[in-house]
Amino acid sequence: MKVALLLAYDGTGFSGFARQRPTVRTVQGELEERLTTILRAPIGITGAGRTDAGVHAAGQVVSFDAPDGTDPAWVRARLNRWLGPEIAIRAAAEAPDGFDARFSAMRREYDYRVYQSDAPDPFRDRFEVWEPARLTLTTMRAAGRAFVGEHDFSSFCRRGDGSLVRRVRRVGVTRTGDDLRFEVVADAFCHQQVRSMVGMLLEVGRGKRAPQDVVAALGARDRAAAGPVAPARGLHLMRVVYRPDPFASATGRRTR
Amino acid sequence: MKVALLLAYDGTGFSGFARQRPTVRTVQGELEERLTTILRAPIGITGAGRTDAGVHAAGQVVSFDAPDGTDPAWVRARLNRWLGPEIAIRAAAEAPDGFDARFSAMRREYDYRVYQSDAPDPFRDRFEVWEPARLTLTTMRAAGRAFVGEHDFSSFCRRGDGSLVRRVRRVGVTRTGDDLRFEVVADAFCHQQVRSMVGMLLEVGRGKRAPQDVVAALGARDRAAAGPVAPARGLHLMRVVYRPDPFASATGRRTR
Repeated sequence: MKVALLLAYDGTGFSGFARQRPTVRTVQGELEERLTTILRAPIGITGAGRTDAGVHAAGQVVSFDAPDGTDPAWVRARLNRWLGPEIAIRAAAEAPDGFDARFSAMRREYDYRVYQSDAPDPFRDRFEVWEPARLTLTTMRAAGRAFVGEHDFSSFCRRGDGSLVRRVRRVGVTRTGDDLRFEVVADAFCHQQVRSMVGMLLEVGRGKRAPQDVVAALGARDRAAAGPVAPARGLHLMRVVYRPDPFASATGRRTR
Repeated sequence: MKVALLLAYDGTGFSGFARQRPTVRTVQGELEERLTTILRAPIGITGAGRTDAGVHAAGQVVSFDAPDGTDPAWVRARLNRWLGPEIAIRAAAEAPDGFDARFSAMRREYDYRVYQSDAPDPFRDRFEVWEPARLTLTTMRAAGRAFVGEHDFSSFCRRGDGSLVRRVRRVGVTRTGDDLRFEVVADAFCHQQVRSMVGMLLEVGRGKRAPQDVVAALGARDRAAAGPVAPARGLHLMRVVYRPDPFASATGRRTR
């Protein structure tokens, strides 16, 4: 049977989502090790987003083949006992046979968070990036709109494994108090795309670049044309969209 | 001249506020070391609250004697560059000669934070304590009221260095979504008093103790009569009250 998990994690202590050498601590590695133990069968998982070292998730989705008769709610409770609070399983559900967390995903939604106080804030700094400079919302929004649509994102991707054409659905910039939130939605992303896009938007917000520079940078198809890559710890994978939603009827097991 | 600093810190990585052996990392130790370097004179600080290992602060206050002519705004900027984001200097001001962060304090306000989701939350767990059991607000509020007033807090203090009579001004319990906040205000506290009081309130909320057990526990003057001490990471020193407020006119130096 196929099982899907909805998870949240604090990425600070992980060398990213994707499994690497056994000595490197990754989200996938921790999950597979624990699942293999509790299900008494070798389990390999697929994740919707291969988040980088230090990147967080509130809505990562993984799927795997489990022995028939596995109770997703039991798996969730067992995993939460072992992996929490760094990794939390928010929901677990049986998924249709053909479901694959990566290839069935229609859309990925990321948030990038920045705070603007005049001193660093110990309570936000783990999950947001401090930016003392004043940032101009109007020009960042204009620059964000220039990313929307289907483009070759070679200038905003770390490396060229196949086509780097991606369709960006939405780039939103909102401010609440001194918190800024960059919301970036696409069908799929290439490596470091969101952080590279946000790096460019921040340069625009600081007045060092103009909104139309985004168009030029996209056209250049050259990594050097983009701005600096924004730090990992501001980035959060918020949601992965599937139709139908595999967690629609999953409530998770209440601890009480 | 006397200088006062208003500071926030993430207590996770510190063995508490108070300086210990040089190999032990404390908030006081870090501050004194850095102040001594930038002011080129040995600086010893006094803090309003000697928070335990793992306890956080949003409004700790320290004071020290600085060489005449020291610019508090410059001290603040230098410290933030070195100590941030784990420790942040929110404000710095010249204080009246007789000012002492500890002995001039009229009131200390602490918050204790608990969250009630059915799974641990990686984004709250550093600064709040997960409590999956349902907690009853009405009985916790009744128990909280029993603490208010002047009492011998021997049952709720870690050790008896002098009188353990303290005057508690307020114990509030509020819920916002699945976040619980215990607000405890007193002129001064003895060691582990807030965590010990909250530990008792949580036992009442879980239905394991009755509100009137607080009265009995206070009367017993015996550590064993209280409940378990609540974990350090839910506790935050929010505010220390002075009259006049040494930071009333301090705006801090804007970074830009």
